[in-house]
Amino acid sequence: MSPFQRFVPVLVLLLLLPAGLRAAPLEVDGARLESRLQGLAAFGRNPEGGVSRVAYTDADLAGRAYVMDLLRDLELEPRIDSAGNILARRAGSEPGLAPILFGSHIDSVPHGGNYDGDAGVMAAIEVLATLNDAGVATRHPLEIVVFSNEEGGLVGSKAFAGILDAAVLDERSQAGMTIRDGIARIGGDPARIAAAAHRAGDYAAYLELHIEQGGVLDAAGEDIGVVTGIVGIDWWEVTVAGVANHAGTTPMDARHDALVGAAEMILAVHRIAREEPGTQVATVGRIAAYPGAPNVIPGRVAMSLEIRDLSNAHILEIFGQIRDASRAIAKARGLELAFRKTPIHEIAKVTEPRFRDLIEAAAHSRGYSARRMPSGAGHDAQAVAHVAPIGMIFVPSVGGISHAPEEFTAPDALAKGANVLLDTVRAIDATLSDERAQ
Amino acid sequence: MSPFQRFVPVLVLLLLLPAGLRAAPLEVDGARLESRLQGLAAFGRNPEGGVSRVAYTDADLAGRAYVMDLLRDLELEPRIDSAGNILARRAGSEPGLAPILFGSHIDSVPHGGNYDGDAGVMAAIEVLATLNDAGVATRHPLEIVVFSNEEGGLVGSKAFAGILDAAVLDERSQAGMTIRDGIARIGGDPARIAAAAHRAGDYAAYLELHIEQGGVLDAAGEDIGVVTGIVGIDWWEVTVAGVANHAGTTPMDARHDALVGAAEMILAVHRIAREEPGTQVATVGRIAAYPGAPNVIPGRVAMSLEIRDLSNAHILEIFGQIRDASRAIAKARGLELAFRKTPIHEIAKVTEPRFRDLIEAAAHSRGYSARRMPSGAGHDAQAVAHVAPIGMIFVPSVGGISHAPEEFTAPDALAKGANVLLDTVRAIDATLSDERAQ
Repeated sequence: MSPFQRFVPVLVLLLLLPAGLRAAPLEVDGARLESRLQGLAAFGRNPEGGVSRVAYTDADLAGRAYVMDLLRDLELEPRIDSAGNILARRAGSEPGLAPILFGSHIDSVPHGGNYDGDAGVMAAIEVLATLNDAGVATRHPLEIVVFSNEEGGLVGSKAFAGILDAAVLDERSQAGMTIRDGIARIGGDPARIAAAAHRAGDYAAYLELHIEQGGVLDAAGEDIGVVTGIVGIDWWEVTVAGVANHAGTTPMDARHDALVGAAEMILAVHRIAREEPGTQVATVGRIAAYPGAPNVIPGRVAMSLEIRDLSNAHILEIFGQIRDASRAIAKARGLELAFRKTPIHEIAKVTEPRFRDLIEAAAHSRGYSARRMPSGAGHDAQAVAHVAPIGMIFVPSVGGISHAPEEFTAPDALAKGANVLLDTVRAIDATLSDERAQ
Repeated sequence: MSPFQRFVPVLVLLLLLPAGLRAAPLEVDGARLESRLQGLAAFGRNPEGGVSRVAYTDADLAGRAYVMDLLRDLELEPRIDSAGNILARRAGSEPGLAPILFGSHIDSVPHGGNYDGDAGVMAAIEVLATLNDAGVATRHPLEIVVFSNEEGGLVGSKAFAGILDAAVLDERSQAGMTIRDGIARIGGDPARIAAAAHRAGDYAAYLELHIEQGGVLDAAGEDIGVVTGIVGIDWWEVTVAGVANHAGTTPMDARHDALVGAAEMILAVHRIAREEPGTQVATVGRIAAYPGAPNVIPGRVAMSLEIRDLSNAHILEIFGQIRDASRAIAKARGLELAFRKTPIHEIAKVTEPRFRDLIEAAAHSRGYSARRMPSGAGHDAQAVAHVAPIGMIFVPSVGGISHAPEEFTAPDALAKGANVLLDTVRAIDATLSDERAQ
């Protein structure tokens, strides 16, 4: 069961809010937020102005130290759990309530940018700073989290949710060392990794602000993305087999060209994903033709197929259409066709519907535009969803650029997101009926 | 000027032939031909029953020794020219006439078969043996040639025609040594390579019997291919550029997927080559998408484009259509497109029209079916065409298989080809007016 009341209209929520909050909503300090974000950007800075702050590297350690200092400035006592996650709790006024958790991560991909993860951590810190400055107490404890090694496979957040496969600890991280050694290096305790795990009920909510990493909000000129969920992902390996033959001596009408068949299938993948109702995406990102010589008709093509959607069942429906269309193409061209499911299979995680309403109401009450949208990328929130209801707030990525030094979100756009995070935290705090408190 | 009369109808030719030849045509000994072919197959035999008789290897040396012994059995004195070509001349009855040359090669690709090249050399030897057995003299000298290193780039025949780039001598051959050292190893004299070169008029004709290396004759159940020419070849490198982006966060209608555009272009290449009148072929044999990850929309695709046709001008016409269609696709999908011409450029070589008529007449007079067809593969004849009129006779390749151990031409099919070669040599000998003799 969900630990809070359902179906309370936003209007009722607003009536329930303290009069002072309604009359004079708090405002985050956008300049301070931006200044701290730029301060973080110093650690791991790359020549293009982004960062290479891969988890467990010296740059990661330095960035984490910077963040912990900011938390101490807020009169919090940061702690590092056994998975290397940084956590800092501000007490609530009502005894026994589960904390409201919010944050993101500060590790980056190699040659990454300054906003993926960082924006969410700095916005979380700004929310607490704003509450501190205004002397506003909350019923629930508020807790900031900086998850470790998000880019390497949601390592910290999976451990937090108790779903980290122990075998992952022995994998080599992008920093060169094993994940086990990396966790130890940042102050975790990999031998006691299970101590980082939580159960449903430990936290009342998890909220994460993140850059969109796509170009939808930027293209539409909208301020806030109300994330409906984090998409499920399935990968297949597709093999098309024809007959390799001499490109000079085989007439056009006597060919069984695997690449010509594969080309028709690639167009079918694109068409089906585009024309079917829904927000699914389907991609062929990798392709190889064999033997691969300019003067030999390809006898075999291997290619990847990825489908993402907020519903895993819908992924399979789309796959079925792609498979059927591809089979018809193969039959017409005299080709063999095989789909092999790979182990890549991510379960879609929907966000808590009540949180979506609160995020949207917060945006609209401040005059910001908002749109509901899925997250096509993975986030720590999808791991945390195993143990707590989640909500996510997107801010625009200019040009949709992500995982690159050119990643950019304008300061005022980030401040709007932080204001929405602030209001949403307060609205949840004000309205949530915590089972443990009742 | 061509060294023989043009436009003499086949009927007139037949009337001109000696009465004895018309009344009782000679017959090659198909069993002897097949037996000698199988004898050659011993040298370089691979486990699958084909041969790996790469030029300049021990297997090549052994095969050449076997062929030279066969030539000596015909009371010829084989000589090796400075390019390593084996030549053996049988005197003619009429002083001053240029020889009629015929043959092929006996080197193979690595892991090749028993018919590519070998069939032509053994048929040439069988033709001389048949003439010897019948005590038939010819007006022109007849000369058998075994060109060296055909599979490595027509090395021997290009030197024979005086068109071998000297830089080729320093290239590494598939035998491991340089081509220079390889030529020396088989008895040539690479320092005097130019001594192998000939001029127009040195030879009255060059005829080559070869397996088709395609499946056209086999599929049609036809006996003889009257080769109209050896196709020209042009290669382009095609680059399609879009925008690489996150496969999860980029909606289908916001993509500039280079691979989707490339797929549409591959279909256009196939359609244009197939639907335009003519026997052109066009192939995309190599493709790569970048960055090449299943979860990244391809931002760039590089692929090969090969077009072959008997007319280099027609190749450019077909290319123009492909380019225009591809530009329209790129424009519609918001992609950049570039075609870069590679150095691969083979001039089409047409066979002598009179020789085609003689080959076809020889086939029909024996009740064999024949079809005119281009050679989509390269042959020594295309090099020799620089210095002599050429004719080519194709025999069927079962299943169109070539450059593989499964290469096969039935003994009776090869015997038919050798009979056509025999008749064609005799018809040219009987009817050709050699300028040097007049």
